[in-house]
Amino acid sequence: MTSPEAREEAVLEAVRKRREQVNDAIPEELPIKRPERLYEASRYLLDAGGKRLRPTVLLTTAEALTDVDPLSADYRSFDPVDGSGPVDMMAAAVSVEVIQSFTLIHDDIMDDDDLRRGVPAVHKEYDLETAILAGDTLYSKAFEIMLETGAESDRIVDALDVLATTCTDICEGQSLDVTFEERADVSPDEYLEMVEQKTAVLYAASACLPAILLGADDETIEELYGYGLDIGRAFQIRDDVLDLTVPSEQLGKQRGSDLVENKQTLITVHAREQGVDVENLVDTDDVEAVTEAEIDDAVAELEASGSIAYADETATDLVERGKRRLEVLPDNEARDLLCELADYLIERGY
Amino acid sequence: MTSPEAREEAVLEAVRKRREQVNDAIPEELPIKRPERLYEASRYLLDAGGKRLRPTVLLTTAEALTDVDPLSADYRSFDPVDGSGPVDMMAAAVSVEVIQSFTLIHDDIMDDDDLRRGVPAVHKEYDLETAILAGDTLYSKAFEIMLETGAESDRIVDALDVLATTCTDICEGQSLDVTFEERADVSPDEYLEMVEQKTAVLYAASACLPAILLGADDETIEELYGYGLDIGRAFQIRDDVLDLTVPSEQLGKQRGSDLVENKQTLITVHAREQGVDVENLVDTDDVEAVTEAEIDDAVAELEASGSIAYADETATDLVERGKRRLEVLPDNEARDLLCELADYLIERGY
Repeated sequence: MTSPEAREEAVLEAVRKRREQVNDAIPEELPIKRPERLYEASRYLLDAGGKRLRPTVLLTTAEALTDVDPLSADYRSFDPVDGSGPVDMMAAAVSVEVIQSFTLIHDDIMDDDDLRRGVPAVHKEYDLETAILAGDTLYSKAFEIMLETGAESDRIVDALDVLATTCTDICEGQSLDVTFEERADVSPDEYLEMVEQKTAVLYAASACLPAILLGADDETIEELYGYGLDIGRAFQIRDDVLDLTVPSEQLGKQRGSDLVENKQTLITVHAREQGVDVENLVDTDDVEAVTEAEIDDAVAELEASGSIAYADETATDLVERGKRRLEVLPDNEARDLLCELADYLIERGY
Repeated sequence: MTSPEAREEAVLEAVRKRREQVNDAIPEELPIKRPERLYEASRYLLDAGGKRLRPTVLLTTAEALTDVDPLSADYRSFDPVDGSGPVDMMAAAVSVEVIQSFTLIHDDIMDDDDLRRGVPAVHKEYDLETAILAGDTLYSKAFEIMLETGAESDRIVDALDVLATTCTDICEGQSLDVTFEERADVSPDEYLEMVEQKTAVLYAASACLPAILLGADDETIEELYGYGLDIGRAFQIRDDVLDLTVPSEQLGKQRGSDLVENKQTLITVHAREQGVDVENLVDTDDVEAVTEAEIDDAVAELEASGSIAYADETATDLVERGKRRLEVLPDNEARDLLCELADYLIERGY
């Protein structure tokens, strides 16, 4: 048995090595060209960093499917097992990251968030017009990039179908999220459905796209999609817990800001069902004004109602289910890594 | 020889009949579903009307290519000449109109325009968040709809490539247009390039998509794309002329508003090259405050510099070139209609 710390370290190392390759591929797929301001704004958030978790899931799933040792294959020329021509798996990985970036740019406008990844949001660094247009450009570029994987036509068609449906889901999920802000009767199931659409589908797409592009059977595609949905929801739930439990300095923003801003989370929708007066857990709705003591009291109440434990359990159950779905893959090192990635999403400290 | 009025009437009738079918197909392809507010906002502008010129070009090109009598075939089950399975040409037509609608919604936000098609812009009728999200939803829906034409996989891949590249072009064109507002040295060639990217590419896509989906040869695809680019640019130039020459009541907005708002048009960039002080043609920059007499004086100056004639000639040359490209098609009634459509775009009174 390796220690949780050693396991986390191994996962982070695996993510880091793939991230480096993804970071190199982004300017290749999305060069700055005329009109420069548009492309600079489109690249701004992509260049500001990010863990590249979705591309990592995609690239590792490709390795697991083809039974090659992690990091041993050329992602740009990835050989399917059925002998058809090589697939540019890195293009698929970048496409998914580009979609993620487009949604963040538009979400930040909609939520009027000033900061993202430690830098100003695109609509703050540039302006509203440029940010809308940068997002729109990334949107079509993601499709252009996915079209260049070199996979067989019917597989590309299926891959683009997943990409388009995923984007529609994300829009629907974001729309539900906005509606939820005005409702005090959102159930845990409704919340989980929203998270599935807004966040988890892009993990699901990342996990199933290599299977589609490499010509895997329907069951494999479906189970990998399910794995992505499960770990994607777990990821978001863990985020909600971390917002309450990680010190502000480490979080990079005020701890408990979701509570202050009356943002719905699995924790608050559960607490409300337990009779907690969620809207008044903290008196202020100004993140600048809230005290650590107020947050401590609120967290204590959410612990007493069992809501934080409920969220942790739900995330753990989802990750366990997601990992079981991976049995559809050959037993190899890459599959182990996908299991560890799933664990990491709910064990990570921040 | 038929009179111009009779020709225009015939074109309008042809457009009207296809428009009715397109109008019926839009709710089929884009039903209002949960979350309702999102889909209602996405449909708002599509339901508010529009000539459906791009779908008309697409459907008529399909008829010309397959040598069938106009309006005699079922657009939903359109038979390619090569004996491959039927293609849902109406889905392709709706996809193009959905892209057009998405760009209008986002453009209206960027330009802060209040009205569109006689109704409030989506960000005015709903709100900024909903308008961004409605545009994003239409974006992915256009791809989903194009994926459902039932054409052969390699043709669908090529069609989606055209759709994605077209969207990227439109974003680049819109970005150039914004940049031009701050420049006083835009040349006619630069202006025409911007119009090509912002406006004409969607006409080009409309004209070449049926050729791609039906498996036509590369030369046909290319010439049809060129036809669309030519008539699309002519359409925009004609719009610029009409803004100066059609009475306000008929135009549905203040005549000369482009001049008042210092918007670049082919007319103003030409006039500037002729030494006209374009920025001061009208004193006010408030469309509410400008008088008809001021507009009359400005138009007289633009006539004296030959700029309106230059725009008219450029549009006519483009339309003539576009029509010549149609020689790649079989000589039939639908091809004649595509010629008349081209003429209509520059002869229309408003």
